[in-house]
Amino acid sequence: MFEWFRRRSRKGKPAAVLGQRETIVEANRYDLADLAPNTVSYLGQVAYFELAVFETLSRAVSESPTLASKEGLSAVAGDALAKHHGIVAELRKLKVDPALAMEPFAASIDRFKELTRGNDWLETLVSVYITGGFLDDFFQRIVGALPKALASRVQQLIEPDREAAIIVEQLQAAIDADPRVASRLALFGRRLLGDAILLARNAIAGSGDRAHDEARMEPVFTDLIAAHSRRMDALGFTA
Amino acid sequence: MFEWFRRRSRKGKPAAVLGQRETIVEANRYDLADLAPNTVSYLGQVAYFELAVFETLSRAVSESPTLASKEGLSAVAGDALAKHHGIVAELRKLKVDPALAMEPFAASIDRFKELTRGNDWLETLVSVYITGGFLDDFFQRIVGALPKALASRVQQLIEPDREAAIIVEQLQAAIDADPRVASRLALFGRRLLGDAILLARNAIAGSGDRAHDEARMEPVFTDLIAAHSRRMDALGFTA
Repeated sequence: MFEWFRRRSRKGKPAAVLGQRETIVEANRYDLADLAPNTVSYLGQVAYFELAVFETLSRAVSESPTLASKEGLSAVAGDALAKHHGIVAELRKLKVDPALAMEPFAASIDRFKELTRGNDWLETLVSVYITGGFLDDFFQRIVGALPKALASRVQQLIEPDREAAIIVEQLQAAIDADPRVASRLALFGRRLLGDAILLARNAIAGSGDRAHDEARMEPVFTDLIAAHSRRMDALGFTA
Repeated sequence: MFEWFRRRSRKGKPAAVLGQRETIVEANRYDLADLAPNTVSYLGQVAYFELAVFETLSRAVSESPTLASKEGLSAVAGDALAKHHGIVAELRKLKVDPALAMEPFAASIDRFKELTRGNDWLETLVSVYITGGFLDDFFQRIVGALPKALASRVQQLIEPDREAAIIVEQLQAAIDADPRVASRLALFGRRLLGDAILLARNAIAGSGDRAHDEARMEPVFTDLIAAHSRRMDALGFTA
């Protein structure tokens, strides 16, 4: 088990969280130049990940119980699609075929999508919120290894939790209507963290020295898990 | 059977069609002020129709056989979603709840979506191309009954066939790879025209005098069917 799984228990802090970052994460404070994927690999997997989030959200749009939630989620789906298209545009600027850049990551991200899809509409929303937030956050934090101007554009583009309030609102309404769903969704949310961490870990190129890599990545994962806890808090869940 | 079903047979004209309109349709040359739906009804049904097109396209994105087609169709889905969100923004400007405006049209458009979804990925693409093109074209042609500034914004927003080349390319590749699919898809394309006309006809408020309404709408449907034939031509199909 990696060091970053043994996170400190964080509780109770009321969530003054989402959409309230004053500044974009300082990706450069992590020194990951030798661990982060190269530019094309980075863009390829972010592009495919955002497309997968979009697909999951589209399904949630179709399964929405009300027109208002359908409308709201379609905006969230549009945000994921805009992230995907923004990254694809960066690949095209580099004269890289987006499909070729995404290809190496398609199988593992498809598997991740299946693993985390959830058994019903509410679980799907929890999944998109928790894993989408975590991985956008992760990709944003390792962006420092990209060329500087590109890094800055990508960081703006994939800002995590931009539309999270819409999802939180839907989940909160469902929990208010039937408080019994809360514990099931909280459990599911906790389970998702492991899947999200594994996908992130696979995105790291690795130096060949596992202990060294763990030590280098630990500050990143500590921050990611803290942000995850704030996402759980926003739903009234213990992380 | 309505007059506009008995269209003239049009054939053979090679398709110099899509994305090549020099000018936006002159909606004002149809005098439909007493037949077109009122502003909120118009916007509500266009918004819901574009959301339905988006949902169908999202499914096609998920079912895409290659990453390149997935990527291409995601752009088409994004265009449908942008149309939806653009119309929703117009409803909000009018202080109308988009969900309430869409509600009266949800059942008939959901039924239409089911009827026209097609039995496989290729039929779904034909459907989106043919029915989406037809109905965008229809909504654009009756826009003249809206307040002038709004009409002009809506007309830009719902321009038909903006991303059709992507779909045509996918279908053409499939037909080239297996020419036997062409006749099945052509048949399906012809069937779709009837469904699209019915949905359009239901969007007309009607004066109560059916013969009068038919006569008034005939020029619109003549133009719509001509555009439909050009869409079919672009695939090498006889309309």
